[in-house]
Amino acid sequence: MAGYTFFTNPMSRGQIARWALHEVGADYEQVIVDYGAPKPAALLAANGLGKLPTLVHHSADGDYPIAETAAICAYLAETEDNGALAPTAQERAAYYRWLFFAAGPLEQAITARSMGFEPNERQKVSVGFGCYDLVVDTLAAHLRGSDYVCGARFTMADVYVGSHVLWGTMFKTLPELPEFVAYGERLSARAKYAEAKAIDHALIAAAQATTQAAASAEAKV
Amino acid sequence: MAGYTFFTNPMSRGQIARWALHEVGADYEQVIVDYGAPKPAALLAANGLGKLPTLVHHSADGDYPIAETAAICAYLAETEDNGALAPTAQERAAYYRWLFFAAGPLEQAITARSMGFEPNERQKVSVGFGCYDLVVDTLAAHLRGSDYVCGARFTMADVYVGSHVLWGTMFKTLPELPEFVAYGERLSARAKYAEAKAIDHALIAAAQATTQAAASAEAKV
Repeated sequence: MAGYTFFTNPMSRGQIARWALHEVGADYEQVIVDYGAPKPAALLAANGLGKLPTLVHHSADGDYPIAETAAICAYLAETEDNGALAPTAQERAAYYRWLFFAAGPLEQAITARSMGFEPNERQKVSVGFGCYDLVVDTLAAHLRGSDYVCGARFTMADVYVGSHVLWGTMFKTLPELPEFVAYGERLSARAKYAEAKAIDHALIAAAQATTQAAASAEAKV
Repeated sequence: MAGYTFFTNPMSRGQIARWALHEVGADYEQVIVDYGAPKPAALLAANGLGKLPTLVHHSADGDYPIAETAAICAYLAETEDNGALAPTAQERAAYYRWLFFAAGPLEQAITARSMGFEPNERQKVSVGFGCYDLVVDTLAAHLRGSDYVCGARFTMADVYVGSHVLWGTMFKTLPELPEFVAYGERLSARAKYAEAKAIDHALIAAAQATTQAAASAEAKV
């Protein structure tokens, strides 16, 4: 049995978790869960929300389900590859800060904007993300002075924060600031990034080919 | 100089960070930042967002700013008290999972509802938190089978997740489910919880007395 069972869909945040799995060289078996199809019982047993990605670690002392993409990243960093991508004591503050910043205010600001919700002046005080522009500026300011989240060295925080930046600049939910573009280029030049993306892109292409073949067969009927 | 400078306001999520500081026995100096007053330069230098709480660790090898309440909790757990409140390898999956669950979907679901925003059926697929009821049920189901986030032992994840549960049931942003009430009682019975809360409650009472005295002086003019 592989070390991990990885429930994912290539069109989901599972792309981030797959990149993390490849960065630490984890041995995993994937279970592709189609949207619209019933959720597999093993996925629901591991994560009642049925969210993708969900990971189950088959460790020597038992099975550990892990959900929330950032948690999957943090778990893999500590558990695999002798902790090579986990933070040192000197990197720890930046590591946790920006991991939670991306999972919280950044994700929330982007979601709120894409759903057409903008907090008013009174709400800005109480919502955790303040406002979109301030969140974007804060992240850009950090990356202006730092090649990676924790400084000169790539850590697992870059897989998670970097995926938000790469995704956001690609789908225009983040502005194409030079700090974001340069950071994205550093990350996408990594061999493990390319390796993981190639798998998800092939899965997406295969799914599209199946859909097109079905549509074509239907058209012929 | 104290080990930490703690920028906070007693009416903010700083209450969570203070509880975390007390649980690990950290030596800190507080800087109370009033809402509406200009942000201190030292706070803005540490955190461009000027958000409260923000913590600065004055360590032997330099100053480390930490922001995002969950990150402050995770940082203190790893750094202080010989890591006593950080997770063991067996607790790690649950620790990260529920820490990020509370910082992400739970916070987002509560915020969205309190701001009057409910995702429609199509949006539920793409927003990270799915829907409020499912998020609440998922957390309750976990606490039904577990005294603490990681099982039988209190860890730093309980400071963060537990604060959401205590706050939510108090201010009715979470339902008063028996799982939430019992968990909240276990947490609020802790000596360090009472110690930290006493400080914030005294600060709030003092601020209210000042406001009332000012209002009364004004009324006499």
